[in-house]
Amino acid sequence: MKKELDAIFKSRSVAVIGATGRKGSIGRETLHNILLAEFNGKVFPVNPKAQVIHSIKAYSTILDVPDSVDLAIIIVPKEHVVGVVRQCGEKGVKGIVVITAGFSETGKEGEKREKEVLKVVQEYDMRMIGPNCFGIVNTDPKVNLNATFGKTYPKQGRIGFITQSGAMGEAIMNTAKELGIGFSVVASIGNKADISSNDILEYFKDDPNTDIILMYLENFGNPKKFTQIAREISYKKPIVVVKSGRTSLGAKAASSHTGALAGLDVGVDALFDQTGVMRVDTVEELFDVASALANQPVPKGNKVCVVTNAGGPGILATDALINNGMEMPSFSPSTVKTLKKFISAEASFSNPMDMVAGAGAKEFKLTLEAVLKDKRYDTIIPIFVPPVTINQLEVAKNIYEAVKDTKKTILACFMGAGFSSEGISYLKEHNIPVYIFPEAIAKTLETLAKYNNWLKKPKGKFRNFKVDTAKVSAIVAKAKAEKLDAIIGDDAIEILQAYGIQAAGYQYASSANEAATISSQLGFPVVMKINTPQILHKTEFGAVKVDLRTESEVKKTYNDLKNKIAKHYPNEEFSVSIQEMITGGIETVIGMTIDPTFGPLVMFGLGGIYVEIMKDVSFKINPLTDVQSKEMIRSLKSYPLLTGFRGADPVDLKTLDETLLRVSQLVKDFEDFVEIDINPFIVSPSKDNCKAVDARFILKK
Amino acid sequence: MKKELDAIFKSRSVAVIGATGRKGSIGRETLHNILLAEFNGKVFPVNPKAQVIHSIKAYSTILDVPDSVDLAIIIVPKEHVVGVVRQCGEKGVKGIVVITAGFSETGKEGEKREKEVLKVVQEYDMRMIGPNCFGIVNTDPKVNLNATFGKTYPKQGRIGFITQSGAMGEAIMNTAKELGIGFSVVASIGNKADISSNDILEYFKDDPNTDIILMYLENFGNPKKFTQIAREISYKKPIVVVKSGRTSLGAKAASSHTGALAGLDVGVDALFDQTGVMRVDTVEELFDVASALANQPVPKGNKVCVVTNAGGPGILATDALINNGMEMPSFSPSTVKTLKKFISAEASFSNPMDMVAGAGAKEFKLTLEAVLKDKRYDTIIPIFVPPVTINQLEVAKNIYEAVKDTKKTILACFMGAGFSSEGISYLKEHNIPVYIFPEAIAKTLETLAKYNNWLKKPKGKFRNFKVDTAKVSAIVAKAKAEKLDAIIGDDAIEILQAYGIQAAGYQYASSANEAATISSQLGFPVVMKINTPQILHKTEFGAVKVDLRTESEVKKTYNDLKNKIAKHYPNEEFSVSIQEMITGGIETVIGMTIDPTFGPLVMFGLGGIYVEIMKDVSFKINPLTDVQSKEMIRSLKSYPLLTGFRGADPVDLKTLDETLLRVSQLVKDFEDFVEIDINPFIVSPSKDNCKAVDARFILKK
Repeated sequence: MKKELDAIFKSRSVAVIGATGRKGSIGRETLHNILLAEFNGKVFPVNPKAQVIHSIKAYSTILDVPDSVDLAIIIVPKEHVVGVVRQCGEKGVKGIVVITAGFSETGKEGEKREKEVLKVVQEYDMRMIGPNCFGIVNTDPKVNLNATFGKTYPKQGRIGFITQSGAMGEAIMNTAKELGIGFSVVASIGNKADISSNDILEYFKDDPNTDIILMYLENFGNPKKFTQIAREISYKKPIVVVKSGRTSLGAKAASSHTGALAGLDVGVDALFDQTGVMRVDTVEELFDVASALANQPVPKGNKVCVVTNAGGPGILATDALINNGMEMPSFSPSTVKTLKKFISAEASFSNPMDMVAGAGAKEFKLTLEAVLKDKRYDTIIPIFVPPVTINQLEVAKNIYEAVKDTKKTILACFMGAGFSSEGISYLKEHNIPVYIFPEAIAKTLETLAKYNNWLKKPKGKFRNFKVDTAKVSAIVAKAKAEKLDAIIGDDAIEILQAYGIQAAGYQYASSANEAATISSQLGFPVVMKINTPQILHKTEFGAVKVDLRTESEVKKTYNDLKNKIAKHYPNEEFSVSIQEMITGGIETVIGMTIDPTFGPLVMFGLGGIYVEIMKDVSFKINPLTDVQSKEMIRSLKSYPLLTGFRGADPVDLKTLDETLLRVSQLVKDFEDFVEIDINPFIVSPSKDNCKAVDARFILKK
Repeated sequence: MKKELDAIFKSRSVAVIGATGRKGSIGRETLHNILLAEFNGKVFPVNPKAQVIHSIKAYSTILDVPDSVDLAIIIVPKEHVVGVVRQCGEKGVKGIVVITAGFSETGKEGEKREKEVLKVVQEYDMRMIGPNCFGIVNTDPKVNLNATFGKTYPKQGRIGFITQSGAMGEAIMNTAKELGIGFSVVASIGNKADISSNDILEYFKDDPNTDIILMYLENFGNPKKFTQIAREISYKKPIVVVKSGRTSLGAKAASSHTGALAGLDVGVDALFDQTGVMRVDTVEELFDVASALANQPVPKGNKVCVVTNAGGPGILATDALINNGMEMPSFSPSTVKTLKKFISAEASFSNPMDMVAGAGAKEFKLTLEAVLKDKRYDTIIPIFVPPVTINQLEVAKNIYEAVKDTKKTILACFMGAGFSSEGISYLKEHNIPVYIFPEAIAKTLETLAKYNNWLKKPKGKFRNFKVDTAKVSAIVAKAKAEKLDAIIGDDAIEILQAYGIQAAGYQYASSANEAATISSQLGFPVVMKINTPQILHKTEFGAVKVDLRTESEVKKTYNDLKNKIAKHYPNEEFSVSIQEMITGGIETVIGMTIDPTFGPLVMFGLGGIYVEIMKDVSFKINPLTDVQSKEMIRSLKSYPLLTGFRGADPVDLKTLDETLLRVSQLVKDFEDFVEIDINPFIVSPSKDNCKAVDARFILKK
């Protein structure tokens, strides 16, 4: 694939098919851009109606071009694309970029047209970017290819950029230029009929000109491949993504079903979490993070020092940093001693360090040098609000002088200096990112910290438990034979037990006396449930009775329930299930749902309100490593409940960790289920009292 | 006060005391700015060492100025300020602005100096802004006063701006100018020794040039007065505030004490909530909101329509809008019919309306006209990503043509068009705010929606219950006489009962038999607690035993507790309290803590983990109206637990609402407490089972 993409991005000979001389036309602008960027190769305009375009000889068809051609940029009307692509094939072109729109993005007719084009591409062993794309850019001075119809030829830089939306591509390139951010390669991949974002990602992995990868994504073609590639790349080159389509317009009802809890976006977040990909919410944040990554090391930790000549911005920065999970330790005594030598005694010598008004270039330099020596900090943020009396460029120069040799992360803020003053320009030219507002720095550091944590995390292993797959197969086969929608009750419990997941068994009773006898044998207290498949939400119906302590209580409860059911379902046969009651434990929920893109997601949460109202749950894409199962449990806000809240004994987390991994294995082994709810799985301090009490496996239709 | 502030802001005769000709000096720049802005009055430089400054005759002292002087701007060294101020008094000056720093912001010496200055100001019946401020601005063409030393003379506009930080003032004015936002009056209030932000707020209330008020605040001088003024103004003129100092650096331990739960900033948020003041987190958001308010009506509701020529930004906008609480209803059938007349059938005719590539000025105009007629929307957001083939200015003109007569809110987004293209400039000149990123619009709409909700909210009434204050006074007096730190146990319960708050009474037992007898009388089940003041966190010690169902259980529990205590506190006398057990209810916590700035805050939350780990609590500044008490309860994330979660009966909310108001009255009547915790207050479906079970009143030292 590298060879094929090299033919596209490092082409020495390009044909622009559909080039015109008409001002404002996409064909003209694309040819124009290639010429303006001083492409280091040969360009051949192709247009049956023109002799010369932009002073360059034009050819009727690509077959008339006398030289060989690596790359064809195609901008002809959609109906002509197939024919033109076939000519490219005959000519021996290796790569094509189809800018023309009107393919699968427009409905069935377009889809058909796209398939025809793809067939020809494959027939001639070519590779294609697009259709319906914005073009490609390679800023390498050896190449200088700007085959887009946009207005912006980006600065050279070390960022590779993949965009699924042409409009966003143009918007991002334009804004990047205003912010002074450069790109190595830009690929607008359009409908991804042939070459996908995964292919380009893989290309960036080994591209010596690309250190950082930015992506604008709307959906995933092959998330499994993305996971594998992105995970590998993230260890070497950071990936930052804006993925749109975050919210679902419909409100979700309160429910503990794993399926209803998984929002549209849970899979995407899980995917990014598991691959080290930094997800940002907005294009603004994309730039903020990219500026930091392109110019500074990823901070080694969360400890930040702010040095400022103005109190207000220092306080705003502190607010934002703390809110975004940073720490701001105070200075070491020796730092304070150094600072006191040149900073007025009126200052407070705390972090944020407000050097008080009047501090200028010299104070910035000396203060930064002092705090850089203080081992407590990973990141230093100089904040400058230019007073009229102080030369801004001098301050910028002195900031640079102070920090130029450090390995710590430096992110500067020039507030109220305009969007591009001479001080800001100076720092940017010297690889110090400058932000207009301190809040952007705080958000950036939060994103980088998440990445850094991912980098440091152990990779984890997949466990493989000895389980009884035959038993589960038998239960599933029986349920399918009976055309059941779901496996519930003791069958469900037996599936769990076959996978070594502890569960409280059921016994059934169809008379009050039988219920009492069974209860006595199990030992009090017991739980009684109506054994009627129609009533899935047992709690809401009042159909679960807990903590029954005596035989007479059991009998009375049996009769009460029977009468209640008789009223609502007069034709229903009545029986109950009796189960030992696990006391003193905490209810958790373990579940699985199928994401249409990512496949099975495993869920964990604390039971009842934590799941249903607080939505305090975690999801991961199956299968889970032993590190991931631990993380799922420990990342919950309600996690402290499990570790000994208010003097309670901590629950047996080892058993819980293992249970999640066993569920993960079950999900991996059996593709028969579309949803699993183990609810509740009770956890307790003693291993013996960690047990599933109810479970439900919804079968694939 | 209006007259005095008019003398300052609408002065006809200004002396600049400390003006110099030295480039870069604050004195020179201030004089220079007054001249540059073409001040509509007389200016007199005062400097003992110069004859002429900037071609204007200078005077040795203000007493030498031949004309009368309304306003003196003082920039002399800090040691000379008192003397100069006295001369101003003798001259008959009405207002002074002291720019000089080195007063209370720098420590004790400076504080003394500030007091001396203030004394002179008051002696001569003058009013003073500052010291340590950035100066003042009035852009009214009849005045044109720019008495600051900054580099920016703001555009004329209808925004009044109060800033407590000079550096932030300069930064904000500078950025505002770049964004094309204008101000009516800017007041940098510095140390607020005399004139406060409240005074300026009040001035803006009746200032015909000011429609919107922006503030940058670091702290509150007189929050009670702020509450009263801000509440009144908010109904007429929106107030938007950046208040810094949001976070406390120290992490807060998990605890249910109201005091520990109230962060540094809970009072500020409560204050803003209660006064309709819009709080924004960042200076960026301040501008975003200000642009909308200055040019567009506040949206009547949350329903938004997005019209775009590019899919990607449309999706990003939708994500952000939904996340910020907006709704995006689909089009009415008649709107779809209209749209189909001129938009390609390939479009999807849903909200966001992606007109697909190629849509230009005409399509924007027709689509906007169509959706403006659709009654479903309160706000319309046109998003334009400029393709090379489309004239951006034409699009801007057509957007304006379509929306110029609407009463709906229009906020536009031009993405990737640069920070100030001709299209953006055109729209801004025609009062349509333009944002670079759609997320900023979403955040702005969220802030405006909160304001609109406040405007629509009923004002509420204070209730006055008949209570037994004498009884509470007696209990407090007794506790004080005994030098107790806190009132707990049955004394605390009696305070509640005196205020008509239902509570479960205590009885004490100092033997197992006595405990059993009392329990029998109360009726089972009962709760037993160790009656030992030292063990405040009873649950953690395991010193509360609930659900005791028989006499023998009571006796055994008594003896177990006694043995446990004997081990840890061998010299402690042992007794227990016995209390009826309220079953089937939900634990809540009602509390009070004193905010150093805002006085008593009332707190409400659900008990246990909801309060301690989920931090799901609400605070309001006391006293509460009947609307506010309701809001406190209903704003909790865990509120659905009270309204019948999973088929349970809803609790008696009326009693809970009333209980909060009774607590509010108690807090208002007695200033003896620094903290109150009613924990738990159990709520149940039946009024009789809504009862406080434990309470603690910590006494002021």
